[in-house]
Amino acid sequence: MTESPRSAPNPRRRSERSRRAILSAALELCSENGYGRVTIEGIAARAGVSKKTIYRWWATKGAVLLEAVIEAVVSTSPLPDTGDVDTDLVTHVTSVMRVFTSPVIGPAYTGILSELLHDEALARAVNEELVGPRVALVHERLRAGQRQGQLPPDADLELAVEMLYGPLYYRHALKRPFHDPDRIASLVAHVMRALRAPSPS
Amino acid sequence: MTESPRSAPNPRRRSERSRRAILSAALELCSENGYGRVTIEGIAARAGVSKKTIYRWWATKGAVLLEAVIEAVVSTSPLPDTGDVDTDLVTHVTSVMRVFTSPVIGPAYTGILSELLHDEALARAVNEELVGPRVALVHERLRAGQRQGQLPPDADLELAVEMLYGPLYYRHALKRPFHDPDRIASLVAHVMRALRAPSPS
Repeated sequence: MTESPRSAPNPRRRSERSRRAILSAALELCSENGYGRVTIEGIAARAGVSKKTIYRWWATKGAVLLEAVIEAVVSTSPLPDTGDVDTDLVTHVTSVMRVFTSPVIGPAYTGILSELLHDEALARAVNEELVGPRVALVHERLRAGQRQGQLPPDADLELAVEMLYGPLYYRHALKRPFHDPDRIASLVAHVMRALRAPSPS
Repeated sequence: MTESPRSAPNPRRRSERSRRAILSAALELCSENGYGRVTIEGIAARAGVSKKTIYRWWATKGAVLLEAVIEAVVSTSPLPDTGDVDTDLVTHVTSVMRVFTSPVIGPAYTGILSELLHDEALARAVNEELVGPRVALVHERLRAGQRQGQLPPDADLELAVEMLYGPLYYRHALKRPFHDPDRIASLVAHVMRALRAPSPS
């Protein structure tokens, strides 16, 4: 009762430390052994926590790996606003290219993309928790470009996102990911030209 | 020795009949039960052939399903040459959209795309036997458009293919495939505008 609050263990902080250890362990194991061989037991052993601790927060290994991928993607592929929408999209899409080829994040996201094709709940989670918020960021950046007169007010922003991300997913799906930032710069330039060219109708 | 060649059984034709029965059975089972539950045993039973017959021609169920998908894709998504490259690409890409959503071909190609992410041999086969020849057709059609002055001679045809197919693979990968032919027409129009717009450099 006389103990100072400062010296009491902070359960939130301790949980956060476990959470980070679990997410790192999951990515490491996926990178080392492949998504198919990752188990909750293995993650628990590597992270130094009990299986019960993991199951308290996540229902499946897919959910653990999705959270790990989301944190890694958010921190490694920002969408800056320097005032030049073309430059900012090149920065962003190039960093997304690097997500697909990253030895740490790539294998986990590849495994998730393979599994979600026959797992509706995982597909929903990927769309709602990862892709949806990322797409919203791109839309926001494109709308700022519209406000600054860098893009026409009637540009089809949904299609813009599909044309920017599409080729990366296409090449990843066929195991021929982009490696060359010049190709990404060229892709972005093409998409921006498409959005700016007058519609023939 | 006196038997007429006409009345002799034709082993080539008989093989072709078995081959078609096997490919149809494989697609049907995949559509009914999902890729994961398809087995060589099941295909043999449905097609009325022995497992040995299947293994004489294919090493894995993935190889059977890939051949079935290739035949179905080739017959359902042609690339016409009417003289108008924009119209022909809309026709082609719309038919590719229908491949992804087809209740017959879709589940098989989805299963193949899931499996190839952790199967190098299948990935190579998909690229060499399915995607490569399709991409070559699109390139050929785009080059004809260039010869007819409908596209600039320096248009980036590789990127054109990536922008045309990319959004379809992106949306398929996230289980949100295109269903609306108008979106495909809009996609093709954007890609053609990108290829025609003068490069700023």
